[in-house]
Amino acid sequence: MKKALVTGGAGFLGSHLSRRLLDDGYEVTALDNLFTGTKENIYPLLANRRFSFVLHDVTQPFWGQFDEIYNLACPASPIHYQHNPVETLKSSVLGVMNMLDLALKTKARLLHTSTSEVYGDPLVHPQVETYWGNVNTIGVRSCYDEGKRCAETLVADYRREFGVDARMVRIFNTYGPNMHPKDGRVISNFIMQALAGENITLFGDGTQTRSFQYCDDLVDAMRTYMELPVEKVGAFFAAKGLGAPVLNAGNPEEYTIRELAEKVLELIPGSKSEIVFEPLPSDDPKRRRPDISLARELLGWAPKVPLEAGLAKTVEYFKGKYNR
Amino acid sequence: MKKALVTGGAGFLGSHLSRRLLDDGYEVTALDNLFTGTKENIYPLLANRRFSFVLHDVTQPFWGQFDEIYNLACPASPIHYQHNPVETLKSSVLGVMNMLDLALKTKARLLHTSTSEVYGDPLVHPQVETYWGNVNTIGVRSCYDEGKRCAETLVADYRREFGVDARMVRIFNTYGPNMHPKDGRVISNFIMQALAGENITLFGDGTQTRSFQYCDDLVDAMRTYMELPVEKVGAFFAAKGLGAPVLNAGNPEEYTIRELAEKVLELIPGSKSEIVFEPLPSDDPKRRRPDISLARELLGWAPKVPLEAGLAKTVEYFKGKYNR
Repeated sequence: MKKALVTGGAGFLGSHLSRRLLDDGYEVTALDNLFTGTKENIYPLLANRRFSFVLHDVTQPFWGQFDEIYNLACPASPIHYQHNPVETLKSSVLGVMNMLDLALKTKARLLHTSTSEVYGDPLVHPQVETYWGNVNTIGVRSCYDEGKRCAETLVADYRREFGVDARMVRIFNTYGPNMHPKDGRVISNFIMQALAGENITLFGDGTQTRSFQYCDDLVDAMRTYMELPVEKVGAFFAAKGLGAPVLNAGNPEEYTIRELAEKVLELIPGSKSEIVFEPLPSDDPKRRRPDISLARELLGWAPKVPLEAGLAKTVEYFKGKYNR
Repeated sequence: MKKALVTGGAGFLGSHLSRRLLDDGYEVTALDNLFTGTKENIYPLLANRRFSFVLHDVTQPFWGQFDEIYNLACPASPIHYQHNPVETLKSSVLGVMNMLDLALKTKARLLHTSTSEVYGDPLVHPQVETYWGNVNTIGVRSCYDEGKRCAETLVADYRREFGVDARMVRIFNTYGPNMHPKDGRVISNFIMQALAGENITLFGDGTQTRSFQYCDDLVDAMRTYMELPVEKVGAFFAAKGLGAPVLNAGNPEEYTIRELAEKVLELIPGSKSEIVFEPLPSDDPKRRRPDISLARELLGWAPKVPLEAGLAKTVEYFKGKYNR
């Protein structure tokens, strides 16, 4: 039986990935410090004998024998990471160091989750993996953006210097059940506001666009990516002129924030919410959309879940949260 | 008597700074793992009772009570840092974490040395401190560039989150005695080649420009910067729209690499060297020149040593090395 380690395993994405790995027959160890993750996310998994939860902070070394390591641990929403920026950066940088050391020592395959935030406020649109990004090193978002950039560098260098079989995925906006209801991100904000009958807050004029990927689509991409032989991955990215395997995973369909707010309101017909506007926070990226040509080519993958369908599932999840 | 800690204190810049701090009446502790630094650089200081050398790697915590910490430790030439990229990145990131933790615990003032490499292959010329840079996260230079970017983020966040009095200087190309003769950088390369009568190698067509700052000018800037009251520094950078104190220090005079080679040959009249051309290495930045308006305004500082004078001193130093 294959063994997988999932850091951030009680988080939004980690819990979906852990469930999927169990479905695929793996023995799964989920590591989480429960700073932003919560055991509620993994309640349905705890009864499975192939599942273990370990309360652990990824900034500290962790040892164990696994075939595959999925490194997801990091506070990923501005509300959380700006609350404790130094720890956020450490969870990215020390976390990936610890997981790379584990992969090196045990010859495990590693998938590190990077982020579209490495592109910052991009000057290239849509973003391709060869784009170097436009990121402020000393702003209030930098702890996340630069921590994630630095983690990519470590992955690339552990590959080159030590031959670790590590792969990276740059995750664009992803949503779905198990999102933290108060993570301050646009989809959870809008749904929670609509359910509470509070006004829906748009920052700026609401014309900034975002792409939204449903969680199951991302998990499909990650699993397919990790199944590929090491030689194929190496050859593919070298041929694309990339110094390491970094693959965008996101939904390239663009919606304005205003369209999103309207769709949420359609799904909650009785809501008394109205749309209101507030100023943009500092360093907020204006526009981001993945170019997923490489993922299509390498994985034969593209997102399948339409925004309406994914939103409907997410609204159902939040209704359960909100009505308790 | 004021106490100063200098990490990288046996390196090129650290040895000049340590000497200057002794001249200014400080008790100086120089920390170095001697990976690229060498005790030869501090032979003249060892007899001074106010000087201590400690063999220590800055990636490990270090404790002691100092008024001022100067964090210079990091392999800074591509030949050195590409030899051991993971350790290079760790020396930047773990090094600054350890020094920030020390500054936090002991209320010391910290000067962290960043680099013009945070601008990468800049799209803005000359580079101003508000420019965010153009850096590849996964290339062969990334261990240095991204390590230094991540260190800046840590400094900015330790300031915001914990109130550490930390300042940063982004150092542009600097040269002078005590440079490592085999660090692969352009000035040491040219002088060593000219002294040996070997051909002088220009990468590309030699028209890429660089700015060259003499080491004493940089040390002047660092010392003046560290003397400023904390309130003045905070207010100045806030007024400039910068999230943390980052100050360019370099010589804005531009020379082509070819002009530099010719000046070196003029200083070594008997040399049998000729100028030859080779292809540019990957990710080599094409052009870099500091805008030093902020340093002029804040410090009343500008470089004083002309290239010819600095080169002459550097040639004398290398002659001593080469003729032994």
